[in-house]
Amino acid sequence: MIITLTTDFGLKDHFAGAMKGAILGIAPQAAIVDITHEVEPFEIVQGGFLLWQAYSGFPKGTVHVAVVDPGVGTERRPLLAEAAGQYFIGPDNGVLSMIYQSEKHKVRAITNQKYWLKQVSRTFHGRDIFAPCAAHLARGATPASFGKPVNDYVQLSEIVPFRQSRRAWAGTVLHVDRFGNLVTNFHIHAFEDFRTRPFEMSVGLQRLARLGLTFADGLPGELFAIVGSSGYIEVAVNQKSAAKQLGCGPGAPVDLAFF
Amino acid sequence: MIITLTTDFGLKDHFAGAMKGAILGIAPQAAIVDITHEVEPFEIVQGGFLLWQAYSGFPKGTVHVAVVDPGVGTERRPLLAEAAGQYFIGPDNGVLSMIYQSEKHKVRAITNQKYWLKQVSRTFHGRDIFAPCAAHLARGATPASFGKPVNDYVQLSEIVPFRQSRRAWAGTVLHVDRFGNLVTNFHIHAFEDFRTRPFEMSVGLQRLARLGLTFADGLPGELFAIVGSSGYIEVAVNQKSAAKQLGCGPGAPVDLAFF
Amino acid sequence: MIITLTTDFGLKDHFAGAMKGAILGIAPQAAIVDITHEVEPFEIVQGGFLLWQAYSGFPKGTVHVAVVDPGVGTERRPLLAEAAGQYFIGPDNGVLSMIYQSEKHKVRAITNQKYWLKQVSRTFHGRDIFAPCAAHLARGATPASFGKPVNDYVQLSEIVPFRQSRRAWAGTVLHVDRFGNLVTNFHIHAFEDFRTRPFEMSVGLQRLARLGLTFADGLPGELFAIVGSSGYIEVAVNQKSAAKQLGCGPGAPVDLAFF
Repeated sequence: MIITLTTDFGLKDHFAGAMKGAILGIAPQAAIVDITHEVEPFEIVQGGFLLWQAYSGFPKGTVHVAVVDPGVGTERRPLLAEAAGQYFIGPDNGVLSMIYQSEKHKVRAITNQKYWLKQVSRTFHGRDIFAPCAAHLARGATPASFGKPVNDYVQLSEIVPFRQSRRAWAGTVLHVDRFGNLVTNFHIHAFEDFRTRPFEMSVGLQRLARLGLTFADGLPGELFAIVGSSGYIEVAVNQKSAAKQLGCGPGAPVDLAFF
Repeated sequence: MIITLTTDFGLKDHFAGAMKGAILGIAPQAAIVDITHEVEPFEIVQGGFLLWQAYSGFPKGTVHVAVVDPGVGTERRPLLAEAAGQYFIGPDNGVLSMIYQSEKHKVRAITNQKYWLKQVSRTFHGRDIFAPCAAHLARGATPASFGKPVNDYVQLSEIVPFRQSRRAWAGTVLHVDRFGNLVTNFHIHAFEDFRTRPFEMSVGLQRLARLGLTFADGLPGELFAIVGSSGYIEVAVNQKSAAKQLGCGPGAPVDLAFF
Repeated sequence: MIITLTTDFGLKDHFAGAMKGAILGIAPQAAIVDITHEVEPFEIVQGGFLLWQAYSGFPKGTVHVAVVDPGVGTERRPLLAEAAGQYFIGPDNGVLSMIYQSEKHKVRAITNQKYWLKQVSRTFHGRDIFAPCAAHLARGATPASFGKPVNDYVQLSEIVPFRQSRRAWAGTVLHVDRFGNLVTNFHIHAFEDFRTRPFEMSVGLQRLARLGLTFADGLPGELFAIVGSSGYIEVAVNQKSAAKQLGCGPGAPVDLAFF
């Protein structure tokens, strides 16, 4: 009866605490695990990326709640997805796109309001809808009791690069890690050419053309690419924050051309 | 057997970890939930506000520990309050004022030192007194065994605005949220006039006179008021941190006049 | 079945979440407690200090995992130490030095790879080795089944000051707390002379020669020494961050001379 939380609520406010209260008020035995609450505000792709990097080790039956929800209070639906024997609850804004892409999945629109808090605010569905639904699911409510399967859920295209021409691709920054490295959405499995072909990558107002082997493998201040621990190409600066040097964060465009 | 923690200890140091050890050494089955450890140092009202925003969802019997304690080591008493079927432990400095104000409550001074650690330091009562008391309470010690009821506990006046004249009020900043919005202690229920009458609010060295409907509803750099998710009037700047623009934090004065 | 985590992974990334998943995938009943994830990157001594400040209250059988591991992917061994009835798991880089120094202990090199994840990455042993080993230990695997006792484990000398001459010592900064105070490795028990003899301490590019009694006990901007809550001499500035004023962090040298 494990419930994880991935949000952009930060740790300074009461928001994560209030979600935990809403869960434990319904399922006092639940073990709540924070993945992170430090997703950049409204950065749906980053939130989805971080949950996706963390979910696979959790046991079957774990309920993952992802609340990065710029559309809170609008008509976007709450969803319950089943994948890899685990559950995923979040808004229908694509935050679960990477789960959809990597696992066989079934998605339901949560329409059964008996699993919501009685009073639902317009601004805090994390506490009023997503947390209570996770708690009821953890307590044994069946997925089918939440609502009917849907197929028209949002899938974000930004999670994979877009091909612009035979040799050029438009990508994006998925995440900035604590060291300021920019995790792009170019995965080495899909872009093996990085290892063998000359390339040029543009991000912020700068360009880079070298694949380093280790983070230490750069001249002072030099911007270079590296295959990160997730398999994604990261943009790094030796001993400095690439994010600060480039003024870039999650969602920034990354152009790539091979020669 | 849930124990929550609200402190100004931050997350960089060992303080929260040491409190958790003190709890689990006594009550190994306790489920410990962080509300926040990022209360601004010594900001009693902010700490009380954050706990008060989060407590209501937790199940009956939950023990909430609030340690924002500039008077640690002095004669201020440790308190145990019962309210809403839950328990609240903290120093007698007003950190529980909002609980007192919103719930029927009984308050005891904790005098029974058998519930404290054997060695009590002068500087870390979070670990040595408050955490162990919470653990013993969670294990089943009766509230009465902690000490006698008291009536002379500290209640902070800052949590509600002070009337200065027929049309003027002196308020304060309760909290700065992660976006830099200043949560004031003017609650819309007590100040419905915000919606209908012209007003002027002074905070830091600036003034504002407009109630916006959404956070996006402001000119670039414009300071405006908004009814926040807690019902309190917040001072915001569109896409910027009002706290930074004004140089203000929790405890800053906020003057209000209606016309 | 309590497992604590002390790492330099920060809270922005998925790393702590992925470690928790690896633990709960093996031991779903484990109660996971964060000591801190905000150790400065690669600061082994600081990580060891923070765990050492927090461990003693935890109940017997608690498993503490310390991952500050600049040598990840190299030949350094994973270790399992038994001390004070508790368990400590981490890399053989000295992160457990303070435990070794203060408790009777037995150390084993973890060689039994059946307790590791099947696929071990080169960069994330926190998830792939340390977390799974902690989970198996918490589930009841015997210490002896992890590997043979060793005596040649790394013990850091930086945790105690080095005597340079009859009256001069070379020390270091163990930790910077949230207020910017520098916690040095001069412990008052070993250096009672602080209380009675004139001294000069050099840190960063500045010197100080006064022992204050309270943090408030300093002129504006004045640098002074104080006995901190851990018993270590701290370098502080009244109402300011000494770390910022000096440009120093964990690992910075601190020279001391008595007169």
